[in-house]
Amino acid sequence: MKRKIEKLGHSQEFTPLLSYTPLSGGKRLRPYLIYLFSEPLGVSKEIYLELGTAVELFHSGSLVQDDLPSLDNDDYRRGKPALHKLYGEGRALLAADYLMLYSGKIISSISLPAKLIVELMELWNETALEVIEGEFLDISISKGRPEEVEKIHRLKTASLFGFCFSSPYVCAGEVRKAISMKSAGIDFGRAFQIFDDIKDKVGSIATLGKTPGKDESQGRPSALRYMEIEEAKEYARKLYTEAIKKIEFIEARKALLEILSMIEKY
Amino acid sequence: MKRKIEKLGHSQEFTPLLSYTPLSGGKRLRPYLIYLFSEPLGVSKEIYLELGTAVELFHSGSLVQDDLPSLDNDDYRRGKPALHKLYGEGRALLAADYLMLYSGKIISSISLPAKLIVELMELWNETALEVIEGEFLDISISKGRPEEVEKIHRLKTASLFGFCFSSPYVCAGEVRKAISMKSAGIDFGRAFQIFDDIKDKVGSIATLGKTPGKDESQGRPSALRYMEIEEAKEYARKLYTEAIKKIEFIEARKALLEILSMIEKY
Repeated sequence: MKRKIEKLGHSQEFTPLLSYTPLSGGKRLRPYLIYLFSEPLGVSKEIYLELGTAVELFHSGSLVQDDLPSLDNDDYRRGKPALHKLYGEGRALLAADYLMLYSGKIISSISLPAKLIVELMELWNETALEVIEGEFLDISISKGRPEEVEKIHRLKTASLFGFCFSSPYVCAGEVRKAISMKSAGIDFGRAFQIFDDIKDKVGSIATLGKTPGKDESQGRPSALRYMEIEEAKEYARKLYTEAIKKIEFIEARKALLEILSMIEKY
Repeated sequence: MKRKIEKLGHSQEFTPLLSYTPLSGGKRLRPYLIYLFSEPLGVSKEIYLELGTAVELFHSGSLVQDDLPSLDNDDYRRGKPALHKLYGEGRALLAADYLMLYSGKIISSISLPAKLIVELMELWNETALEVIEGEFLDISISKGRPEEVEKIHRLKTASLFGFCFSSPYVCAGEVRKAISMKSAGIDFGRAFQIFDDIKDKVGSIATLGKTPGKDESQGRPSALRYMEIEEAKEYARKLYTEAIKKIEFIEARKALLEILSMIEKY
């Protein structure tokens, strides 16, 4: 995965910008989730690494873009200067495009029967568009009513988790089961985003790797606009447990519970 | 095509931004080229309209992005205010993402056998990435040596024409022939870009629908950095004629020659 990312792009001018954010750390939570489901389903390592790379590159591209002055205007990401602070906004923006589009390239080249690739592409394209639409609503809807906040969480964050939960099933040929797993992934992702909103409120730059308190100062929709911190935590835990109940593999359930206890600490 | 574009996005807040640039006119040259090859190959109208929409939406998304202050910084496009002048940079940027990613969604849902869709997706993803890399080099390489200018033209402009020439062949199942047609489309696109560079130098805002003289004032790579206008025209005509020679359909050849005479007028 690392070697592939280091070689992205065909121009020596472009390559360093493309690998900067994907290789600057981060939890790699999304590829890990894909692995968690792929392993018991018998999806090959080659395939789940490709899927994980696709998701991680898209996620990195969207982070590069989020940090731009016209969006979240953040100078730091993963404890390092944001890409546009090093290379300027225009170049960072094009690197973000490339990373987001590259995911489609990876997915369309996965070694699976053509029919499954087409299923996977449809799932992927829907996901990618949902993320962008969620980001759009995030900056367009000031504060937000509860149902708007929920919609934004579902699109901008949870949709990608839905892909992580369901794509291994598509690869295993279990296309129907993939649909219900997508909804479990969305619940998981909504819980994740609520914890993220809490972190943004109470975290420090050291624990976040980015500037805290931005949701509030930018008037962004947040779960904490209509819930107290303890209430939000309780709600997120409930969503989380609901999602885990739908998971058929004991090992994956255990791993997800461990992730929960990590996410809860801040 | 128009009705589909008017309904893009799932949120009433997003839809108007997504249709603004694609429906604001433009020559629709790329969908027309797809039609020119699809018709004699017997590719159905349903399919070539989908292909044309995909290409036009991607192209519109890249124009929205190009106009942003961090790239070309243009306030006008197709004689109307650029999208970011109406909705702000952040929202315009996300609309551009959506339009560019939506093309992949259209292509992966075309009603063709899965094997051909996968071929088409691979061709498309390669094209989209080339366009972005070309735009990156365009703003990263100041002025540019002749071979650099040629590379940038090939990537940022000609690659999409390569797709227009070759994708109908993929849809018709003639995957091998598609490869040589891609190269004809690239020659055509290079010629097109040289004429565009000439227009940028000698055109007016009325004929261009955007601010003229920007290549030079921004130090952008242009064919006119190393060729006089007449020399550049001669070279572009040569590339154009070479491309047309490779085309097997007389009607398509004729139509392309008509396009040439239109492009030459400015």
